[in-house]
Amino acid sequence: MDYYICLDIGGTNIRAALFNNKDIHPIKQIKIKTRSEGLKAEGQIINIIKDIWPIKGTVKAIAAAAPGFVDSEKGIIIKAVNIPGWENFPLQKYIQDKFKVPVLIGNDARLAVLGEWKYGAARGHHNVIYLTISTGIGGGVIINDQVLMGSRGMATELGHTIVLPNGPICSCGQAGHLEAISSGPAIARYVQQQVNNGVQSSLKLTAQITSKEIAEAAFRGDELCISAFERAGTYLGIAIANFIHIFNPTCITLGGGVSLTGDLLLKPTKKVLNEVILSNEYIKDLSITTAEFGDNAGLIGALVLIKNRDL
Amino acid sequence: MDYYICLDIGGTNIRAALFNNKDIHPIKQIKIKTRSEGLKAEGQIINIIKDIWPIKGTVKAIAAAAPGFVDSEKGIIIKAVNIPGWENFPLQKYIQDKFKVPVLIGNDARLAVLGEWKYGAARGHHNVIYLTISTGIGGGVIINDQVLMGSRGMATELGHTIVLPNGPICSCGQAGHLEAISSGPAIARYVQQQVNNGVQSSLKLTAQITSKEIAEAAFRGDELCISAFERAGTYLGIAIANFIHIFNPTCITLGGGVSLTGDLLLKPTKKVLNEVILSNEYIKDLSITTAEFGDNAGLIGALVLIKNRDL
Repeated sequence: MDYYICLDIGGTNIRAALFNNKDIHPIKQIKIKTRSEGLKAEGQIINIIKDIWPIKGTVKAIAAAAPGFVDSEKGIIIKAVNIPGWENFPLQKYIQDKFKVPVLIGNDARLAVLGEWKYGAARGHHNVIYLTISTGIGGGVIINDQVLMGSRGMATELGHTIVLPNGPICSCGQAGHLEAISSGPAIARYVQQQVNNGVQSSLKLTAQITSKEIAEAAFRGDELCISAFERAGTYLGIAIANFIHIFNPTCITLGGGVSLTGDLLLKPTKKVLNEVILSNEYIKDLSITTAEFGDNAGLIGALVLIKNRDL
Repeated sequence: MDYYICLDIGGTNIRAALFNNKDIHPIKQIKIKTRSEGLKAEGQIINIIKDIWPIKGTVKAIAAAAPGFVDSEKGIIIKAVNIPGWENFPLQKYIQDKFKVPVLIGNDARLAVLGEWKYGAARGHHNVIYLTISTGIGGGVIINDQVLMGSRGMATELGHTIVLPNGPICSCGQAGHLEAISSGPAIARYVQQQVNNGVQSSLKLTAQITSKEIAEAAFRGDELCISAFERAGTYLGIAIANFIHIFNPTCITLGGGVSLTGDLLLKPTKKVLNEVILSNEYIKDLSITTAEFGDNAGLIGALVLIKNRDL
């Protein structure tokens, strides 16, 4: 039987899934730490591929969803902030040299939109914007049933668009990006700053406080925590309005842990979206959906990438 | 012989060009006022088409470049701020009913990018962003040799993306749009406000002052006027950086009167672009070109629209 191996490489974990050529449900899945006992990410990638390699049958292709700025044409990770040392790292060649099968790589969010559009929350739509809101904010766009890649596969860095000039500093070092205001760590950072400024909160602050804990406090009625999500949602709404005016889609799919807070984030998002939209014509037939595949969207998208190339 | 009639409908003038089926240079061109002696724009459109209609031969199709928010699928002008009364105006059907030939309509900037990409400053590129900076700021985008239209042909309203939340009010009524900061009238408005606030300038201010006069004063060394273009250029640079991170193009083509001021606008644009770009990889092979067709880009684009449909 023919098999495909798909990877989703994150800053914390690397996940691998083994698919046969008939099904989008993986036969097997493994997860390991991205860095472990002195092993670097690239070593762990080799380990996880060996682990998931089928005993019988043929692996026809490997596809990897990778974080950061990915040149999928050349197969290079230009920069991945969360993986130390990955600057102009030739990931595709690196895996191909070891395993001698065709390897494809893509940015994780751009592969996730492919998965959600082909099999998930955006299926049936021809023009889709996908945003994953978690530690970072990633973006993927479908235009006329094609993933927007750009000239070198570096398009749709939607989280790294400026929504507030001279605003908070982003993980990438730039100021005022959507990710620097509406991602999980950005929400946590805002709450910490406000508490440091003397704003009252029911939260017991720790250095490691997460947006999930802030969401829980908001659900209990903590005003600072509610306002932190309002701020994140407001800028998310501004960004989504911009993306709608740029792409005129029929579907927006939201994934990532922060979007799971539901109305806490999305009510202010939709409020500002309605206020700043150029015309009701842009939104009257617009679906706003929640990603179906969650953490697996990148793996499913990697599988679609392989199938699209007939590998 | 077979002919095509192309129109470019503006807030001030309507221009018509007659093409044969062999050449992109018009056989004949006419320009009339958009409104004249009580005649509305729609009446003037009929007049100019009658005027340019060839005595012999067959008109195979008419295509019109129109301002504002255009639903090119349904053939409707959703809203054109500069043409009173044009709200959900069925322009395509209106012309078709009178002249009984196939009619296509498109947003002027989206047609202009088609013209510049097919025959002008962006030819040979596969991924292009076009911005026309004049009374308004219009945008057009080519992705893999296709114009980005969106689900209803309402995409790439690049001038109506928010670059400064709660910033100056735009012609469309929204706040903080690129057009509200970097268009000609926005530059003039900023200078007027600064003078009203007591800032010194060599300019003799009138209510009708234009960005062209401000550019001339800037070239003479007027500091306020220089700073007005610096401000416009800075936000233009922020917007262009966003568009580059969204589209990863190889060519940016700038048209419109304000872009003719050259370095006055573009030096601060390029400065900020270099500062805020995510990686040099996005810009090292990027061409920034000046539109070749000027005012004719929309007419040429309308012709390409007809040719693409084999009409």
